[in-house]
Amino acid sequence: MATPLDLNPDRLFPADPTTRGIARTLYKEIGALPIVSPHGHTDPTWFATDAKWENATTLLLAPDHYVFRMLYSQGVALDDLAIPRRGGVPATDPRAAWRVFAGNYHLFRGTPSRMWLDHVFAEVFGFDVRLDAGTADLYYDTITDALASDAYRPRALFDRFRIDFLATTEGAHDRLDAHHAIRASGWGGRVVTTYRPDGVIDVEHEQFAGALATFAELTGEDVHSWSGYLAAHRKRRADFRAAGATATDHGHPTARTANLSTAECEALFARIVGGTWDADDAELFRAQMLTEMAKMSVEDGMVMQIHPGSFRNHNAGLFASHGRDKGADIPLRTEYVQALKPMLDVVGTERDLTIILFTLDESVYARELAPLAGHYPCLKLGPAWWFHDSPEGMRRFRELTTETAGFYNTVGFNDDTRAFLSIPARHDVARRVDCAFLARLVAEHRIEDWEAVELAHELTSGLVRRAYRL
Amino acid sequence: MATPLDLNPDRLFPADPTTRGIARTLYKEIGALPIVSPHGHTDPTWFATDAKWENATTLLLAPDHYVFRMLYSQGVALDDLAIPRRGGVPATDPRAAWRVFAGNYHLFRGTPSRMWLDHVFAEVFGFDVRLDAGTADLYYDTITDALASDAYRPRALFDRFRIDFLATTEGAHDRLDAHHAIRASGWGGRVVTTYRPDGVIDVEHEQFAGALATFAELTGEDVHSWSGYLAAHRKRRADFRAAGATATDHGHPTARTANLSTAECEALFARIVGGTWDADDAELFRAQMLTEMAKMSVEDGMVMQIHPGSFRNHNAGLFASHGRDKGADIPLRTEYVQALKPMLDVVGTERDLTIILFTLDESVYARELAPLAGHYPCLKLGPAWWFHDSPEGMRRFRELTTETAGFYNTVGFNDDTRAFLSIPARHDVARRVDCAFLARLVAEHRIEDWEAVELAHELTSGLVRRAYRL
Amino acid sequence: MATPLDLNPDRLFPADPTTRGIARTLYKEIGALPIVSPHGHTDPTWFATDAKWENATTLLLAPDHYVFRMLYSQGVALDDLAIPRRGGVPATDPRAAWRVFAGNYHLFRGTPSRMWLDHVFAEVFGFDVRLDAGTADLYYDTITDALASDAYRPRALFDRFRIDFLATTEGAHDRLDAHHAIRASGWGGRVVTTYRPDGVIDVEHEQFAGALATFAELTGEDVHSWSGYLAAHRKRRADFRAAGATATDHGHPTARTANLSTAECEALFARIVGGTWDADDAELFRAQMLTEMAKMSVEDGMVMQIHPGSFRNHNAGLFASHGRDKGADIPLRTEYVQALKPMLDVVGTERDLTIILFTLDESVYARELAPLAGHYPCLKLGPAWWFHDSPEGMRRFRELTTETAGFYNTVGFNDDTRAFLSIPARHDVARRVDCAFLARLVAEHRIEDWEAVELAHELTSGLVRRAYRL
Repeated sequence: MATPLDLNPDRLFPADPTTRGIARTLYKEIGALPIVSPHGHTDPTWFATDAKWENATTLLLAPDHYVFRMLYSQGVALDDLAIPRRGGVPATDPRAAWRVFAGNYHLFRGTPSRMWLDHVFAEVFGFDVRLDAGTADLYYDTITDALASDAYRPRALFDRFRIDFLATTEGAHDRLDAHHAIRASGWGGRVVTTYRPDGVIDVEHEQFAGALATFAELTGEDVHSWSGYLAAHRKRRADFRAAGATATDHGHPTARTANLSTAECEALFARIVGGTWDADDAELFRAQMLTEMAKMSVEDGMVMQIHPGSFRNHNAGLFASHGRDKGADIPLRTEYVQALKPMLDVVGTERDLTIILFTLDESVYARELAPLAGHYPCLKLGPAWWFHDSPEGMRRFRELTTETAGFYNTVGFNDDTRAFLSIPARHDVARRVDCAFLARLVAEHRIEDWEAVELAHELTSGLVRRAYRL
Repeated sequence: MATPLDLNPDRLFPADPTTRGIARTLYKEIGALPIVSPHGHTDPTWFATDAKWENATTLLLAPDHYVFRMLYSQGVALDDLAIPRRGGVPATDPRAAWRVFAGNYHLFRGTPSRMWLDHVFAEVFGFDVRLDAGTADLYYDTITDALASDAYRPRALFDRFRIDFLATTEGAHDRLDAHHAIRASGWGGRVVTTYRPDGVIDVEHEQFAGALATFAELTGEDVHSWSGYLAAHRKRRADFRAAGATATDHGHPTARTANLSTAECEALFARIVGGTWDADDAELFRAQMLTEMAKMSVEDGMVMQIHPGSFRNHNAGLFASHGRDKGADIPLRTEYVQALKPMLDVVGTERDLTIILFTLDESVYARELAPLAGHYPCLKLGPAWWFHDSPEGMRRFRELTTETAGFYNTVGFNDDTRAFLSIPARHDVARRVDCAFLARLVAEHRIEDWEAVELAHELTSGLVRRAYRL
Repeated sequence: MATPLDLNPDRLFPADPTTRGIARTLYKEIGALPIVSPHGHTDPTWFATDAKWENATTLLLAPDHYVFRMLYSQGVALDDLAIPRRGGVPATDPRAAWRVFAGNYHLFRGTPSRMWLDHVFAEVFGFDVRLDAGTADLYYDTITDALASDAYRPRALFDRFRIDFLATTEGAHDRLDAHHAIRASGWGGRVVTTYRPDGVIDVEHEQFAGALATFAELTGEDVHSWSGYLAAHRKRRADFRAAGATATDHGHPTARTANLSTAECEALFARIVGGTWDADDAELFRAQMLTEMAKMSVEDGMVMQIHPGSFRNHNAGLFASHGRDKGADIPLRTEYVQALKPMLDVVGTERDLTIILFTLDESVYARELAPLAGHYPCLKLGPAWWFHDSPEGMRRFRELTTETAGFYNTVGFNDDTRAFLSIPARHDVARRVDCAFLARLVAEHRIEDWEAVELAHELTSGLVRRAYRL
């Protein structure tokens, strides 16, 4: 027998009645505000073509590494989840994959994925029974049928979700065709790109050479000389700004930065493009490029985002069989204080520069990031990220950073997602957790109730818009 | 005047009435379930001989390093606690030691030792006044008298505690006489061994040579050749399985693993047994042996437990005077992501292998262990361990791991104790803390009440039995 | 319109009514006890001369790096806050600076600075409206007027604050003139010094040579020989003890200690004073000197305080323009277990020695510091320090240390402040947070109510007085 699915209006609020009452009041203020999503990884082609999605599995299961990593960890084969092998086709039909997912849905108890998915099921598709083995087909058919209707096309959902701003992320070697098509279409949705140059910076990535060739082609610069390479970045940053971008994004293994002389840069770059680099060179080049990007941000006003600390594709067997982005990225201990100093020696006192720092290593929140952001004018704290974008993770972020960095050195919420349908769910969780945190401060007489209202608006909207210069 | 000792039925439940009510309901479901103890260090001789224990001090004080480390830290001499010096006899009579302990019992306020001891005093010995200087003799006499009765023999207490399964731990060079005697006795208690080969793997341990000699004798293998040494492990693992073992246990200084070629292994092993090793060799050999043990677990199905990160015998003066295991083991920062990769490159995608990871470094829960266990099919998270086997420690474990690894990649509770009488107390604390955590999730509408009931059973029994293959 | 300022009597107590009730009862017991401040950085000249302070800005804003770092982080120029440049004068008049501060006071929401300042404003100056742009001049004038009255001279406030004991900190090369003047004045306030020899130990400090010259002059020892240098320390420690000091204080970049032979010490020292040292020598010399200081503490009974882990003056641009101590000190990851072993090998089992350990790296509380302090007789845990001297920081300190180290291996609260007026506010926050923590233990039946009363007194007074030998 199916069990009811019912999103409780008090979910994520503390049980204590006084605190819950305050949280409710705060949430009433900001729960329905439009969504500002300044950092994410949705596919701009969706909004360019407004094509219908195909079925429940290809939309909700196969692309979501949060979901299939958990199933894989419990012994489910990716083949049984319709996850394609390298260059191959899914080994299972999508309905069979959905049934496997549904039959294992209890594994997500206590995880944010469960909360996001239930929100999508209830709010986007109108389910009032829970997903389980018994309702697998009902879910699959209902979702797949809905996706065939116009109301579930990307642009319709964008409007229904009340998204005010949505940033995607493209590589420095991306032609931005989808973004140009969005603009040319006359559609009013604000979907803009973000400049992510990792592909032409990380020489250890297997596609570096190809990316660099495209980078040369798109800019007409001699990207094999240091000065030409920098000029190419400047051109592409301008292209991205012309397509609406206000920010850059940098996903490096570490937070290391460098401050080399021009001669040293030229010598290093010659080894990088000459193919004579070693791992230390690759790391040093990424480090120097963060400083170069910061200097360009001083010039052109783009907000810089640094996301270090992930060991990519940790599972060698899975990487061989299924390739990248299969839920096998694992956080590493990450140091910021020594690592960022070379860059900060160059740009640290710039008051018109904004660098947003993220981490997968919560031990640095109170020790390193809050003290840095609570001092340097150019530094701000990005929200709890990836594995920590969860009720407990967001609570720890506030508890560990607020006392040293305050609220005003933070930048609101990022959903950081490829899962378009989960965007409202993710913002809703963040808003509820922020209201719960503020409610505790009010209940303990650490701030006044009217201050909490102001702060709730800031965390939901004001800080985001100002930090990302929207 | 003595103060009352009264175990409150709501202890460890949150004060908020709604949450406490839910916790009570959950605890009613599982509080009285039989104990499954898959990892611990009780002495199997107790159950083989069923001999009576001698007195309160030799049973409860002198062997418990949790207890005497705290007294020592406050300036009490170990001599005054009847802790023997190297090769010597206790400097104090047991009653005098007990009085010192009783007079300092306030030092344990806020510690799990206090909670476990009070549970033992109230539930096992029936005390209704607290231990202090004034009740020291009452306690000593009552306990010592009780121990002289048949009702307090090991097997009687085993039954009274409703222990369904109890694992002990023996070295690879142990003859398993006690376990054979238990089986031969016809007693029905399920007490089984665990294969802990550290003594024949850690060449830096002062008793390595002797252990290796016994290992050779017991297996008839040429343990000075790499292939013979591995064959000896296989034989002994089979001996342990024949004695009921389902698991192995590995307590290394770090989590490092290695994946050397056979030729490299042979060369390294030649240095180890040839006495020409250095500290790097010793570490590399331990690292390689974790991978070898994992490969043997793939063959024979034994569950592998890895417990890294303790600096043993940190206090040089105390080690000189009193020897090992005197409460001077201190946790170290421990890295897992890089460390485990060589082993995982070999066995990571095995779906029938189970490796349970423990840590003394809580900073890795959310950053490293939960992401690893939330991805790799073979990895599971052991419970909060040693210093962290405490109400706050267990709460942090759940808060820091659940959102990424879920509940189903954990393995229930381990009491990990030498203190047999405290086993029910320790399981009771764990059950209460789990119920409190689940109650908060229910109160905040993050899971349903019926899901919490299922999970409470899983954490107490289902996950333990499945993970340890009982 | 001005908003009311009203210090709620229940501030910082948990919202749950049961727990709050217990916290209130505990706070009634200890909230009004005299202040014991064994570690801080107020200026003894204030108490020697009893001169009036000048105005609100020079007393409350310009010297407080907690305050101006936050304003600076949000783009306010230090020039606009009346913070002097190197050798220069403030670029702004104090009233203008105060207005900038007032207009940005919302930035401090959720920080301890806000809580301390509001306490000072309400309790010391009697304000009943909040500081903001509209009340900036009212605040400036009221405070500045008050400071012109005798009731606001340092000694009068010392009495009004009910300070029972106040330690300041002076360098090994300080003449202690202010302390001698306090004693000579016949004033009854207990203000004593603390021996902080960093200036003559840290050869990397730019003023080392000058400090060493004064050190020689004050002691008459040949401070360029190892034995003379040690003798000079002994003399100055005696001078400090004669001036009332009971403690030493050591602020090193790391917790590293060393245990060199005399010959090695002599060779190292020759490089230090001969100017042929490198960074490794500087670090090794600091390490060795911690062990030397510990040995002298065994001789003379002075309590030793070790505060490692701050990267000083991280902002190169600001250091160039404004010099040291401008809010740019950033915590570093800090290791204790390996670092302290050489020193502990020498003094670890001394039962009459007290070494108090502090950290800016909270990840070591549960992993390293609590296990060390819960074992070694000579080690105690200092309170949550600097960035962590805050409600959440102090709560984490108790939650992370109590279960392993207990309460009795801690030493009560340190305000550690230069901001004299904030001392009552800081102690009040600490007392409230401790009462809240104890109340939770009582509400969850982990300790008895009468034990919590005893512990509240210990944390506020008993442990402080005993640890610092007052």
